[in-house]
Amino acid sequence: MNSTSSSNDLINRDRKSLWHPFTQHGLNEELLVISRAAGAYLYLSDGTKLLDAISSWWCNLHGHCHPELVEVASRQFAKLDHVLFAGCTHEPAVELAEALLEATSGKFERVFYSDNGSTAVEVALKMAIQWWFNQGEVRSTIVALEDAYHGDTFGAMAAGARGIFSAPFNAMMFDVSYLSTAGSSDDVEKLHDLVSSNTIAAFIYEPLAQGAGGMKMYSEDTINSYLSICKEHNIPCIADEVMTGFGRTGPLFSSLTLKHSPDILCLSKGLTNGTMPLSATLCTAQIYDEFVSKDHTRTFFHGHTFTGNPIACSVALKSLELTMSTDCEKQRAQITEQNRQCVEQLAQCDSVLNPRYRGTILAFDLQTSDETSYTNSAKTKIVEFFRTKNVLIRPLGNTIYCMPPYCTSPVDLKEAHEAIIDYVTQTCV
Amino acid sequence: MNSTSSSNDLINRDRKSLWHPFTQHGLNEELLVISRAAGAYLYLSDGTKLLDAISSWWCNLHGHCHPELVEVASRQFAKLDHVLFAGCTHEPAVELAEALLEATSGKFERVFYSDNGSTAVEVALKMAIQWWFNQGEVRSTIVALEDAYHGDTFGAMAAGARGIFSAPFNAMMFDVSYLSTAGSSDDVEKLHDLVSSNTIAAFIYEPLAQGAGGMKMYSEDTINSYLSICKEHNIPCIADEVMTGFGRTGPLFSSLTLKHSPDILCLSKGLTNGTMPLSATLCTAQIYDEFVSKDHTRTFFHGHTFTGNPIACSVALKSLELTMSTDCEKQRAQITEQNRQCVEQLAQCDSVLNPRYRGTILAFDLQTSDETSYTNSAKTKIVEFFRTKNVLIRPLGNTIYCMPPYCTSPVDLKEAHEAIIDYVTQTCV
Repeated sequence: MNSTSSSNDLINRDRKSLWHPFTQHGLNEELLVISRAAGAYLYLSDGTKLLDAISSWWCNLHGHCHPELVEVASRQFAKLDHVLFAGCTHEPAVELAEALLEATSGKFERVFYSDNGSTAVEVALKMAIQWWFNQGEVRSTIVALEDAYHGDTFGAMAAGARGIFSAPFNAMMFDVSYLSTAGSSDDVEKLHDLVSSNTIAAFIYEPLAQGAGGMKMYSEDTINSYLSICKEHNIPCIADEVMTGFGRTGPLFSSLTLKHSPDILCLSKGLTNGTMPLSATLCTAQIYDEFVSKDHTRTFFHGHTFTGNPIACSVALKSLELTMSTDCEKQRAQITEQNRQCVEQLAQCDSVLNPRYRGTILAFDLQTSDETSYTNSAKTKIVEFFRTKNVLIRPLGNTIYCMPPYCTSPVDLKEAHEAIIDYVTQTCV
Repeated sequence: MNSTSSSNDLINRDRKSLWHPFTQHGLNEELLVISRAAGAYLYLSDGTKLLDAISSWWCNLHGHCHPELVEVASRQFAKLDHVLFAGCTHEPAVELAEALLEATSGKFERVFYSDNGSTAVEVALKMAIQWWFNQGEVRSTIVALEDAYHGDTFGAMAAGARGIFSAPFNAMMFDVSYLSTAGSSDDVEKLHDLVSSNTIAAFIYEPLAQGAGGMKMYSEDTINSYLSICKEHNIPCIADEVMTGFGRTGPLFSSLTLKHSPDILCLSKGLTNGTMPLSATLCTAQIYDEFVSKDHTRTFFHGHTFTGNPIACSVALKSLELTMSTDCEKQRAQITEQNRQCVEQLAQCDSVLNPRYRGTILAFDLQTSDETSYTNSAKTKIVEFFRTKNVLIRPLGNTIYCMPPYCTSPVDLKEAHEAIIDYVTQTCV
């Protein structure tokens, strides 16, 4: 059987057995069979090489199948694969925790592990809510940003924007009040009223760049004014850096460049270089101390089987080392500069709305007859076009974005940007 | 530095940086530094060998650091570490899905991957709720069992019993109606009333053995009567086999031995032999078909970055092969027989309440001056006693249970059981 027929066979088998995430199987959209990966590339079974221009959902930083990470994982798997993380500890968990606390400039004191971005957010929300509870206050409303996305489990989903993703479950989610990222005087007034009501448990935000809600970017002034108000009223601030963390926006952590650093920080995706599930929720001593007691009822009763998995912690430790290197900083600066240039070109094209970039993330909305949304029908054609250019792009509806691994070569990124310019130029005509 | 001082150093570092799951750090309980693991054993840094008699939170089946799994993981990591699972697929995901559908006797048609037991349950609940929604009905109440535990994210936590775990969040969770596992005529009547109200979205249950709620075991008659009523009224039934799956109770899947098989099945823990995060939610064609359409609003908008992670899928495929082997079946039968004998002995001791076993799970409650509960103070002494016997036991309060990896030798299990008999005999005196 040649590679194409074997690939077709696998597609047929997939279509009989699997249910893919965020996928309307009734549309029968193209399914790529990925047979291997290396560096910034994904390979199809016929040998075709695709640039992973979206870092496999924004999680790959240093390239696929990085030899140093393979080596670390193999060694750790053979030594200590896993042990429950209650009453037991191990070197990889401790070393990673210390490295994360150091990488976040000593702003936090504790690391709580879990498995993915959604659980990192659930842990953060529950920490904030119980922080009040342990002080004798029941607070059950969360403040979040419009267009926010924080994950798909009930708590994380509740904190995100309500819309097509949440519609079937709207009656089952807790109360959330939303602020716009415009940071208008109305928003500021709304937040003042909210925090004065003594019902707000926490404020959660994706700092400076929002992901699944449309790859939106907003000003430091907005978030700084919101953070100041929350800080004045002692409201725990939760930065969801699942996407933005580990240098995506340029600096290591966006939330630490703002006027106030958060009380709780959520990390995942790039934490393991996107190779295996792991997340971390970091918090300050002020949060943690309210849980430490001789009293069982003040315990944070949260955990997952694989919490602190040694293999994932080992890989994350090595990945963080790569992220903290001067080389990586240079790679991010290079991508940022190329993004700046590309956005300048995009701004010349009539079919491009709101071209924008922040560090290694570049995005714009394509002008179409329908409004900008996740279900905008432009998506299919966009995917197909970039597929012919051997670039994996998966737009959010008509919002096209490019967020490559940091190891992407300047030449490859230039070609991807040229493909983008080609596409919008064609669309202009 | 010798191994003890290096171990003490790691404990000190842990106590400054980490927040452990389900742990009241104010109690300063003993923390074991696990330096390596092999087969059924965990090793401390001084070389002490502990029998992992709780399979590291019920997830290890075939022993730690299994050479075949190490090899599979290393090879897969070097070939294809990860790729987003929307619009892309790969061999390990397809092969594992097919193997899971086959291992569950063709009762299901689709596999949806996520990362842990909580997310497997969240996916299941959301599938059931949206299944109604896609048919034009809003149903938002879940029926669950008393003492249930389904995980710690908001949706999974809501479906579990309310108590000390959920107290700070009770105002923020959706409605759940509970049935006792006694299956009294009152329970049956209650369920009849509930399903007749047309508000029930799903019934969720841990089949025959409940985990974190106290390692409780209940009769087939109870669950069969509940399932019959739900089936009559077309209510999706969700079996949470995160703990019981892959042979824990003897047969491969408890839920498939009952009068009605579930519509949705949640698996995790043993899926990867407890080595790395992965879970799977399986469902029937009847569930899946309501989502397949040309209409975007009928899509199941759920996903996690690491959904379908190739490394975890490869490991799970190999682990399932080991689980399906005749050797493994014999190991489980051997443990089951030793459990039967141990329970017979335990029944002779006045300090033992409700000695019980189901397959490879053995449990009993220790008679104490306080009532049976998760926070019963007997826990600390129990842990310490078994620690001196080189057996890792972590009771749920005064509920002692033993659930070893299937590869545990009959001699080792005999010694663990003897330690248990020793302990309860001492407690008798």
